[in-house]
Amino acid sequence: MADWTDCLNFGISIAKQASKVVLTAFQQEKEVKLKSSPADLVTETDQRVETIILSAIRSQYPQHRFIGEESVAAGERVELTDLPTWIIDPIDGTVNFVHRFPFVAISIAFTVNKQTEFGIVYSCVDDKLFHAQRGRGAFLNGEPLHVSGQEDISQCVVVTEIGAERDDLALSTMTSNIFRLLKLPVHGVRALGTAAVDMCQVATGGADAYYHIGMHCWDIAASAIIVREAGGVVKDTDGSEFDMMSRRVIAASSAAVASRIAQVIRPFPCSRDDDDQHSVISSLMSPAWSWTLSGWCRRGGCCPR
Amino acid sequence: MADWTDCLNFGISIAKQASKVVLTAFQQEKEVKLKSSPADLVTETDQRVETIILSAIRSQYPQHRFIGEESVAAGERVELTDLPTWIIDPIDGTVNFVHRFPFVAISIAFTVNKQTEFGIVYSCVDDKLFHAQRGRGAFLNGEPLHVSGQEDISQCVVVTEIGAERDDLALSTMTSNIFRLLKLPVHGVRALGTAAVDMCQVATGGADAYYHIGMHCWDIAASAIIVREAGGVVKDTDGSEFDMMSRRVIAASSAAVASRIAQVIRPFPCSRDDDDQHSVISSLMSPAWSWTLSGWCRRGGCCPR
Repeated sequence: MADWTDCLNFGISIAKQASKVVLTAFQQEKEVKLKSSPADLVTETDQRVETIILSAIRSQYPQHRFIGEESVAAGERVELTDLPTWIIDPIDGTVNFVHRFPFVAISIAFTVNKQTEFGIVYSCVDDKLFHAQRGRGAFLNGEPLHVSGQEDISQCVVVTEIGAERDDLALSTMTSNIFRLLKLPVHGVRALGTAAVDMCQVATGGADAYYHIGMHCWDIAASAIIVREAGGVVKDTDGSEFDMMSRRVIAASSAAVASRIAQVIRPFPCSRDDDDQHSVISSLMSPAWSWTLSGWCRRGGCCPR
Repeated sequence: MADWTDCLNFGISIAKQASKVVLTAFQQEKEVKLKSSPADLVTETDQRVETIILSAIRSQYPQHRFIGEESVAAGERVELTDLPTWIIDPIDGTVNFVHRFPFVAISIAFTVNKQTEFGIVYSCVDDKLFHAQRGRGAFLNGEPLHVSGQEDISQCVVVTEIGAERDDLALSTMTSNIFRLLKLPVHGVRALGTAAVDMCQVATGGADAYYHIGMHCWDIAASAIIVREAGGVVKDTDGSEFDMMSRRVIAASSAAVASRIAQVIRPFPCSRDDDDQHSVISSLMSPAWSWTLSGWCRRGGCCPR
């Protein structure tokens, strides 16, 4: 087995360097642009930090490939090949960053033969550096991490995000998913505003599960290996094998909790990250709920009483 | 105007002492009991910390009165009089505390003639001490706090909590409130799992608004004055004057944002903190939505299409 420790250490050192730029900009006023929706923001700092990270890695590892949030936003194709590939989110939690809500992360994953070899999530504001290397455990600031091991959904704290989607179907599906989880019941639902940091809470044992529909591979590729190396389970939201391009994830303290969440939550259609057409995946269509001024309504039929 | 600075300083010193007990227990396994619902938890530490705080203050200020979460849970009446009164939540975020989700706070407010003179919120795990004294500003670890001043709801990050209520009406009202806010749109919704710390995010400017229905006076009495002294606005969820016993609050960066949130969110019935009968306030009844296996349904009528 190849040893990618040098790359890991290089990634950690680049994340720490890049965090200085993030932290300086965090306190300043930002010029904000919109991407896919009025809640999907980007700043000059996102683009600048991605350039810093990419340039440094390219210079050190000229043969490696990259998938970066801002490069993709600028038109680059998402293609995960067997070649060594760095998957980068320069600022996970851009809305938080713009508002100075104090959770933003630099997320760096590294894959070879489409398998993640290591992941780094640096939560800059509170100086929490999470990392994991395949088969070697997960760590927070050098201390080993372990999931809670919780198997009873009714004893779980669950983290999720609603993200930038604002169409009725996505919003109604996401809020009704939260309703169903709370009704099980679970102990509570939390949202810090960054998928990468949210998911790392499962690795720490502070939360028992995280799920998300609509995030991107760069948001969760690094934290997925961190959760697994902390003893957790990472799945698709339908309970099948995790596919970082599918934009659906459950990370859990146990297979039992992942399975229970998969039974409860419903998906909504969103195109795969590696789908050039960004076509709607019709097979994922959930029962369609819409919102009217009077409340929730199932499309094309009367609500059962 | 009487000067309550000595009491404030005493409160801060007691909060710091009590935090040592909280932080030691935070890392340990806890024996958990249920209160009002399967998600309303209490531990031996909540009770112990309240006893520590109350004993210290009673010894120093024997004439003062108290409203403490755990004393009320043990059967004491909530009665806010004109006498100097300490309103105490020994651990705000008990679910977080049980799970080691890293946001828990000691919340201490002090009222005279039913007016809050100062508030202290000590977010122990990340060592953030918020405080404010009437007319003298709000501070985080000694540094002055200012709200964002944001007036445009579509540019807001909003914090809220779903809390321990698990009946269909409360849950459906809360999740549909989130739906409506996101649909405005707002930039995002966050939830840290402690009302006191959530609300202090508005005082820092990191969030632009916080709202909550169903919390108690001890959860938000301290953070309400912290938000106001940071330049923010604190209201009832119907836009009327804030009443710490009503179990409804909006804290916002501006009157415009508070008003917009009041227009959008709906209440659900919950008894006042100072209501001995814990009777349902029927005047607050919102349109009743219930959840069936097939989805959301308005009680007693077909959903409009």
